[in-house]
Amino acid sequence: MKRNLYLKTMTADAAYKLYVDVLLERNILKRKTEIIKTEDSLGRRTNVAHFAKCNSPLFTASAMDGICVDSKITKNASEENPVILKLGVDYKIVDTGDVIKSPYDAVIMAEDVIEIDEQTVKIIEPAVTWQNVRPIGEDIVEKEMIIPSNHKITAIDIGALMASGNLELSVYKKTSVGIIPTGDEIINPVDKPKEGDIIDSNSYMIKALVNSCGAYGKRYEIVKDDLNLIKEAIKRAVSENDIVIINAGSSAGTEDFSKTAIKELGEIFVHGVSIKPGKPVMLGIIDNKPIIGLPGYPLSTYLAFDIFVKPILDYLNNSKNILEIEKDETIQAKISKRIVSSLKYQEFVRVKVGSVGNELIAAPLNRGAASQMSMVRADGLLVIPQNSEGYEASDVVNIKLLKKKEDIYKTLLCVGSHDVLLDIVTDIMEKKYEDVSFSSTHVGSTAGLMALKRNETMIVPTHLLDEETGVYNIPILKTIFEDVKKGDKYNITLIKGFKRTQGIVVKKGNPLNIKTINDLKNGRFVNRQRGSGTRVLFDYLLKKNGIESNEIDGYDKEMATHMAVCSAVYNDEADFCIAIKPTANTLNLDFIEIGEEEYDFALWTKDINDYKVSRFIDVIKSKELHMELDKLTGYKYDNVGEIINI
Amino acid sequence: MKRNLYLKTMTADAAYKLYVDVLLERNILKRKTEIIKTEDSLGRRTNVAHFAKCNSPLFTASAMDGICVDSKITKNASEENPVILKLGVDYKIVDTGDVIKSPYDAVIMAEDVIEIDEQTVKIIEPAVTWQNVRPIGEDIVEKEMIIPSNHKITAIDIGALMASGNLELSVYKKTSVGIIPTGDEIINPVDKPKEGDIIDSNSYMIKALVNSCGAYGKRYEIVKDDLNLIKEAIKRAVSENDIVIINAGSSAGTEDFSKTAIKELGEIFVHGVSIKPGKPVMLGIIDNKPIIGLPGYPLSTYLAFDIFVKPILDYLNNSKNILEIEKDETIQAKISKRIVSSLKYQEFVRVKVGSVGNELIAAPLNRGAASQMSMVRADGLLVIPQNSEGYEASDVVNIKLLKKKEDIYKTLLCVGSHDVLLDIVTDIMEKKYEDVSFSSTHVGSTAGLMALKRNETMIVPTHLLDEETGVYNIPILKTIFEDVKKGDKYNITLIKGFKRTQGIVVKKGNPLNIKTINDLKNGRFVNRQRGSGTRVLFDYLLKKNGIESNEIDGYDKEMATHMAVCSAVYNDEADFCIAIKPTANTLNLDFIEIGEEEYDFALWTKDINDYKVSRFIDVIKSKELHMELDKLTGYKYDNVGEIINI
Repeated sequence: MKRNLYLKTMTADAAYKLYVDVLLERNILKRKTEIIKTEDSLGRRTNVAHFAKCNSPLFTASAMDGICVDSKITKNASEENPVILKLGVDYKIVDTGDVIKSPYDAVIMAEDVIEIDEQTVKIIEPAVTWQNVRPIGEDIVEKEMIIPSNHKITAIDIGALMASGNLELSVYKKTSVGIIPTGDEIINPVDKPKEGDIIDSNSYMIKALVNSCGAYGKRYEIVKDDLNLIKEAIKRAVSENDIVIINAGSSAGTEDFSKTAIKELGEIFVHGVSIKPGKPVMLGIIDNKPIIGLPGYPLSTYLAFDIFVKPILDYLNNSKNILEIEKDETIQAKISKRIVSSLKYQEFVRVKVGSVGNELIAAPLNRGAASQMSMVRADGLLVIPQNSEGYEASDVVNIKLLKKKEDIYKTLLCVGSHDVLLDIVTDIMEKKYEDVSFSSTHVGSTAGLMALKRNETMIVPTHLLDEETGVYNIPILKTIFEDVKKGDKYNITLIKGFKRTQGIVVKKGNPLNIKTINDLKNGRFVNRQRGSGTRVLFDYLLKKNGIESNEIDGYDKEMATHMAVCSAVYNDEADFCIAIKPTANTLNLDFIEIGEEEYDFALWTKDINDYKVSRFIDVIKSKELHMELDKLTGYKYDNVGEIINI
Repeated sequence: MKRNLYLKTMTADAAYKLYVDVLLERNILKRKTEIIKTEDSLGRRTNVAHFAKCNSPLFTASAMDGICVDSKITKNASEENPVILKLGVDYKIVDTGDVIKSPYDAVIMAEDVIEIDEQTVKIIEPAVTWQNVRPIGEDIVEKEMIIPSNHKITAIDIGALMASGNLELSVYKKTSVGIIPTGDEIINPVDKPKEGDIIDSNSYMIKALVNSCGAYGKRYEIVKDDLNLIKEAIKRAVSENDIVIINAGSSAGTEDFSKTAIKELGEIFVHGVSIKPGKPVMLGIIDNKPIIGLPGYPLSTYLAFDIFVKPILDYLNNSKNILEIEKDETIQAKISKRIVSSLKYQEFVRVKVGSVGNELIAAPLNRGAASQMSMVRADGLLVIPQNSEGYEASDVVNIKLLKKKEDIYKTLLCVGSHDVLLDIVTDIMEKKYEDVSFSSTHVGSTAGLMALKRNETMIVPTHLLDEETGVYNIPILKTIFEDVKKGDKYNITLIKGFKRTQGIVVKKGNPLNIKTINDLKNGRFVNRQRGSGTRVLFDYLLKKNGIESNEIDGYDKEMATHMAVCSAVYNDEADFCIAIKPTANTLNLDFIEIGEEEYDFALWTKDINDYKVSRFIDVIKSKELHMELDKLTGYKYDNVGEIINI
């Protein structure tokens, strides 16, 4: 069981600088150029200045429709003394753009010419030299510069370049990046993967990241964990590209092959940096070309790409100083909960950011390196320096934005209990409104309400049962907000939401013949996390039925969503769970009803008129949403949108 | 000589609204969709939400390299009571990503396992249920939403979509726009056009503009001014595209064909709007598809596209409200000179914008609709409303930016005399520095100095001869800045530049045998504009030689640059001009020296330490520039960069 240890773990900054120093010293980062058609050059960058190859206009030309004349003979024209002109002798008819040649040196507009007959006209005003005439080169003079070096070509430039005889351009070539996915466990993406399959989605993400940097990504076929095969694949990719990325499998074991292959074919300068996620990055050189080993977990891959590959591609794309890394846009926000980080790493935490009242709040997402969805949902990254142990809740931190600033300000933050209907709300919001986007994070009802109390979310989906009164939400809200009430006002508002059916979810056909809570002692259960409304309900039911938690096999196996627990049953990781009916239906599982609960939305009363909240209320009341919920079944919406001030 | 008059000239806003109302009423702007491969979807926009087709992980998997066990049997492990485990019975060796199945429910990291022999290990700590295990669907749960409708796809999304079994996506189709160039006078771009040729660069600019909007532009071959040919071309383009643009020739005459063709094939709603440039735009519908006639002059084409086509393409691309046009970034700046505009039009004036001291200054460029270079050089557009007669110098105006705001702030404004070396300076600046770009506008030395006095430029290239003393620049500077001097300080600094040779430029071989200024009475001259240093020199020489200006044929024909006058000689528009040697050399013309002059740079003394000015001084002193000037010949740079405070 020998495992490779990272011998020298460096900081990301030190590793990057070390590597770039070698690349520069050996003159490896040469920027190639190519000649392309001007018509295909939009967005490309020139490597040299481009000059006009001809004049525009190419000849002295009429700027109007009319007649051209020699201005001298019109000198004395006036109303009293009109000058009579003969076609072919004194004037020629011209359209805009026609050649004007000696002896003609002026154009009189059609409107100012009085026709006498087909061959004769008169004019009553003198023409000034070069009047209505575009002299040769008026717009573009041959050999003048059209665009300088290092210029990003626009549509307007393309017009001027073509007009000045530049049909081809010299531009920087797109850097070609070969991407080699490796690992015995990974397979090419398929519609229906089977157990044990791990879909190689990483190489496609890397290819898209490469393309986002204005470079050209080329994915190679998956290489199995075999040193010789990996070496062959690297050799080929190095010969065919400017840079090569090798994407190791996710286990430390499979990394060894990449490392050995790079060492045997060239040199390796860095293996392992103190960042989290992303540690096992490799930086090497083979045949005077950079080769970079990116780690296997999607988040690690992404971050290592962002830190080590992107700045090199940016440099090759647009000539910046390679060590002055382009600063990403950042934003200041209040962190919604305590985050502990190791002194051993610089850590990157994905966060959702949204405005609550006048403040921006950053809510940390799943920190696992394997959590791809946390990155899809993230609005930004919180970078925790290596010398920091983390942040306390409510600390103001800098967030590196992954979305546009204006999109952050329009985000309606929703933190609390999970329901599939929130996905549908998100979708309808995106479809209907330009000025709001809806962002929900699933932490359970209680944690959501605590976040509301700390002003860290705008609205909270909640379904908390008061065991004594049997009333949903209002009693718990009063308990939680008791200490901040003013007089008899809690200043909290509940927007009534949906009644939904909770029940025991079992496999199709109910093979264990489950009928009541008591039957859950006979089989494998999977639970919801503490603080979630469903957990409160389950614990209430256990107590009511005199069942101890240790009688339930799997009571400690917690998952954060209805879909997650139902999915565990669907995939035979468990025999039953407690969840809502629509989720059970979605996965075609059987459902034994145990009660109806109220899924409502809590917020501070002061925020009820915020336009984002108004849009939210419009959506939960909309036919569009209700039609979707009817398809899922198990929802009632008699009093949806009703406002209860507490 | 019948010409088509625009019967109903509307404001741009009214025309756009009228047109869009018809398009919406008839449901013409339908957004098509298509299924594409996920790996090719970067930057595209979804038309529906996309949901996970499988879980990720697809099965419960190890999150570590180590051994998997049933946690129950490890419950009592401690240093004193190690638990012994047998391979194949109590544990299995697993790598990260391997399947974990019942009875196993926990993974112990390799580092925490003590090997006894090949078949036996011991552990000294209990394993917790699901420790180091990634439960099925931990990251992505089947049927959960990955991305909503109307979402622009990122590299990260591509990873998550592939991982969740979405190998194909439904996205909005790129709007296809057919572009038909028309006109007898235009030809396809060629390297060596000949007299009378007008290169069709417009259709390529339109295609690039269409592509910039995320749509797909398809250029058709040029159609001659023939009603039937135009109708055929339109019919074909309408059948093959979602939208058709017909680009009329630049004369009012050729427009008639387009208009008639649209009328006969469909309907025309607008012909002519009160904007300048851009007036003769046409908005029509054929076979339920929009057809838009864009005017022929490049600037008119660009503006009409920006006002009428771009918002429709943006709407089709990303679902915005079609009447809420995306606001371009604007900036406030002081206008550098008086601008008079007609009450008949909304006018768009191209401006250069740069910072001078703490102020942003907007310097209007050539206002002609034919001036493509004014658009290439422009930083922004000043929009003068139809009900305004224009602006006074120093009025603060809103500029619609064509470049990024940060690029504006780093622009070093240079307004004054023209020299080809300024193009080379621009190029070197772009190559060497990230933080400065150099922008020169050519108005002649005197106008440049007047702009400096009004704080409307940072530096002024000047070569003004004092007739009495024979000294360059300093005496004139003292005269111009006399009224603002404090004590004996003018607070003006002169950066010494280049000595350059002025002379009479004639055709190769000097066919008219010109030797002195006196010979210029015998032939066609082309002059520089009033206020330019060369004009001052010429007038001085005329006076000195007792020659009246009306003895010179062409004295009134003014051009703004050395290149322009030399080009006129080169193309036989004139027999001779006065210019500097390098320009004559560039066009391979003969040169009769008449004197050496000093081309220096004036600025306010307070600005000499501005970093942009420092960069400029570095460049004019650089070997890189001098080598280029040596190639051009005619420059001396003995004391370049010397600072003279006046």
